[in-house]
Amino acid sequence: MEGYGLFLVFFLWALLSGFVSVVFALVWVLRYREGLGWNGAAEEFNWHPVLIITGFVFVQGIAIIVYRLPWTWKCSKFLMKLIHAGLNTIALTLAIIALVAVFDFHNAQKIPNMYSLHSWIGLIAVIFYAVQLVLGFLVFLLPFTPVSLRAIVMPIHVYSGLLIFGTVIATALMGITEKLIFALKSPSYSKSPEEAIFVNILGVLILVFGAIVLWIATRPDWKRPLEQNLKIHEHSGEASDGNTNNSNAMEISSEAAARKRNLNFDEAGQRSTM
Amino acid sequence: MEGYGLFLVFFLWALLSGFVSVVFALVWVLRYREGLGWNGAAEEFNWHPVLIITGFVFVQGIAIIVYRLPWTWKCSKFLMKLIHAGLNTIALTLAIIALVAVFDFHNAQKIPNMYSLHSWIGLIAVIFYAVQLVLGFLVFLLPFTPVSLRAIVMPIHVYSGLLIFGTVIATALMGITEKLIFALKSPSYSKSPEEAIFVNILGVLILVFGAIVLWIATRPDWKRPLEQNLKIHEHSGEASDGNTNNSNAMEISSEAAARKRNLNFDEAGQRSTM
Repeated sequence: MEGYGLFLVFFLWALLSGFVSVVFALVWVLRYREGLGWNGAAEEFNWHPVLIITGFVFVQGIAIIVYRLPWTWKCSKFLMKLIHAGLNTIALTLAIIALVAVFDFHNAQKIPNMYSLHSWIGLIAVIFYAVQLVLGFLVFLLPFTPVSLRAIVMPIHVYSGLLIFGTVIATALMGITEKLIFALKSPSYSKSPEEAIFVNILGVLILVFGAIVLWIATRPDWKRPLEQNLKIHEHSGEASDGNTNNSNAMEISSEAAARKRNLNFDEAGQRSTM
Repeated sequence: MEGYGLFLVFFLWALLSGFVSVVFALVWVLRYREGLGWNGAAEEFNWHPVLIITGFVFVQGIAIIVYRLPWTWKCSKFLMKLIHAGLNTIALTLAIIALVAVFDFHNAQKIPNMYSLHSWIGLIAVIFYAVQLVLGFLVFLLPFTPVSLRAIVMPIHVYSGLLIFGTVIATALMGITEKLIFALKSPSYSKSPEEAIFVNILGVLILVFGAIVLWIATRPDWKRPLEQNLKIHEHSGEASDGNTNNSNAMEISSEAAARKRNLNFDEAGQRSTM
């Protein structure tokens, strides 16, 4: 891998900013707010930011870059797809529980549902994320899906994945904005109490995490090598620890077809944008 | 150009969603709010959303995809860089006037500045955008900048440009959220008055505009062809209307060097991500 050291630096910063965001979310609700509970009151609402930041931001971000980890390249592509799909399923589950928490809280407190821009775009993001997960399973994990279909869907899957991830981060920032305005009354948000500064920093951290994930995901030379190249290395003894399985033959033909189909794309990709 | 019809459809939808967003911003402040003025009161604040959505969202979005317009490919690359830089300068100018409007309004009304997450991330975005513009000018427009430096900076310039654009949209959505909560009192935002629905739709429109611009900007086969390919077409009479100038020779050597330098990048780019 070219620039392995630089990749590690970015990956560690992604882990650090993501992990610290989750810690900040927990400190926010446990120290500055009412804590956690499932009682229809503020404690139940507080699961919303914690689960969204843990699942829909952090776990989703890691799911996006899981193919990029060089120490996974000896594992089969099929296994990595299962891990990618598994992490996204965890993220979706946590996001849905987070939605249940906020609907339950609203209903118990007689607060209307789905009135804010945050709720509109957040629900759109969850629905698109679920559709993306189901389509991803049907197209990339079912063994009988035509290779040509995978090749057509792949650039759309990558684009939608990154767009949904960015939209989730934008929605989280809107949610933080809403909550700080509603929750901080005396002193108000505009008086910049400690909680306001702390949660603003959380917002910046989430944005930094998103920016690092998007950088890692869009570097062409940090991509997992083609299966046939891995096999060549393996046969020449460079990675001969035997971590392959029967699905590899199909993966190779699938990727080769995708590459063939995308030749025009990629020929064009060799050009500079400026 | 491959998929010219499809490109046109996306481009027209980008124009439409961007233009309708600007119209919605105007209708919001003129019909639902206090109108426009420069008097330290709400009328002055109202310039903020109008100028941000017009300049920092719509004009910036068009600046990003201006190289993709096939009818500009007969123009020199240098001219297109000037147009790209010019549109971004207009966007930055409008964003700065929008900032002045809100600071002026806050100061006149004795409202603290820079307390919200919206203001933190918005100011970061404006600063990064200005730095990007100055660096872009120094690296890509000054004739004596080494070709090798252009090749190194280019992928960073593209990534930062798209990241800043996405961040600006996220910040606009936070701003809409803030303003609706502050401005709607009786009936409140949570009662979903007409203005709330109208401005939520504006938020969704801005997101749709951003999504289309990012789709257009990241399709490799919609990129402007390499200068030498354009020249070959021209010499073979396919585009012989003579719209070239002296800067083309340098453009060609610059792009060829960038491509040579990025061969490893691009070899990697030929691989599928799934």
